[in-house]
Amino acid sequence: MQALHQDSSFPNDFDEAARAAVYRAIFTRRDIRGSFLKEPIPDEILARLLSAAHHAPSVGFMQPWNFIVIRTPERRAQIRDLVMKARGEEVRHIDSQQQDLYRNLKLEGILEAPVNLCVTCDRTRAENSPLGRWHNPEMDLYSTVCAVQNLWLAARAEGIGMGWVSILDKDALKTLLGIPAHVVPVAYLCLGYVADFAKKPELESKGWRERLSLADLIASETWANAGEEALKSLIRTGV
Amino acid sequence: MQALHQDSSFPNDFDEAARAAVYRAIFTRRDIRGSFLKEPIPDEILARLLSAAHHAPSVGFMQPWNFIVIRTPERRAQIRDLVMKARGEEVRHIDSQQQDLYRNLKLEGILEAPVNLCVTCDRTRAENSPLGRWHNPEMDLYSTVCAVQNLWLAARAEGIGMGWVSILDKDALKTLLGIPAHVVPVAYLCLGYVADFAKKPELESKGWRERLSLADLIASETWANAGEEALKSLIRTGV
Repeated sequence: MQALHQDSSFPNDFDEAARAAVYRAIFTRRDIRGSFLKEPIPDEILARLLSAAHHAPSVGFMQPWNFIVIRTPERRAQIRDLVMKARGEEVRHIDSQQQDLYRNLKLEGILEAPVNLCVTCDRTRAENSPLGRWHNPEMDLYSTVCAVQNLWLAARAEGIGMGWVSILDKDALKTLLGIPAHVVPVAYLCLGYVADFAKKPELESKGWRERLSLADLIASETWANAGEEALKSLIRTGV
Repeated sequence: MQALHQDSSFPNDFDEAARAAVYRAIFTRRDIRGSFLKEPIPDEILARLLSAAHHAPSVGFMQPWNFIVIRTPERRAQIRDLVMKARGEEVRHIDSQQQDLYRNLKLEGILEAPVNLCVTCDRTRAENSPLGRWHNPEMDLYSTVCAVQNLWLAARAEGIGMGWVSILDKDALKTLLGIPAHVVPVAYLCLGYVADFAKKPELESKGWRERLSLADLIASETWANAGEEALKSLIRTGV
């Protein structure tokens, strides 16, 4: 894979099949919680996924990320305990009509997935040269999220499912993983092979929420300006 | 493209060429500032890019994003003025040895790019059912960033360059675009065709910062635990 980014420059070398592959990864990626296979992820593949993450855009080329690879059942059990506790807290804030559905959702695959990853953001890495961050210091966190999404799409292309677990107390997670104060655990991820990727997001197929109409989310020039009718019409008819 | 997400389920249907295409998009994506071509982006292509963004993961399937398409030169000139003002403020906080280099960097292509996009996050969209957000309310912002990264990679596959402009006062941007108080402008993006994509990130080739060693960013089980030597060795030798 390294050869790809050691050439002198890249023309627009995506033919129709290559372009379709990129869209296929994007459209068929899923947030996996319940269907991990036991098959281990070879280190060669994990290395490729991490390299994909490392080639995310980052504000001021800051590369604020670190990756903690978590494999031991003991530590994963401790983290799952954090999630179970947080679920019990979160459910009380969910609309009462949705609480039963919430209780029945599988929301993490921490123990089943062969590899867990914590992706962090070191907020001090470009302390003296905050290019692009003086007005918007959160950009380093956003860069780290771009790394997560790169990893997610690369995983999809490898037949590996990924789930992002956000129902936990991040301070407790920091303590468990020994993460220093200036570092933010942006994402806790579960990774493993899956037999297939569901047709729709689970929260859509189980009736949690519906897919919004993309055309309704587009405005022209300013927030309240409808416009862009030609674009919206193409989206409605399915380009 | 729509047909891709209307099948019943998706096996791991990525062959070697398709997998390589996904990695190629990831490794050859660049943050474009100075090399936009004048050629317009057809609405069919822009529709595909927005659809890619709309199929990002989102916490609780919240889909918190909106997309404001900005084309008029007048509005773009106003936004560029915000950036020029912010640059003048930011440079004073940059390490003194890097200030000359900073001043010479081209940091946005707002006027040159045929399309500008503001991607926002509506923080109230799942107000009564904050699945995955009770402990970590920032997850909706992170979902929006995932949408941006999807769009970036789809654009790369289309031969379209994208730049994320973060040197501006977001409150002033909100005023200019009429964005309501509960909505956050997460990303201001410039989009346009480019002749090619540079070998390296511009901030790397111009000596702003070096690419970090990925192996040095990996830990095992906890923050301070070296470990994962087999994985790191594979990364060092370039899988």
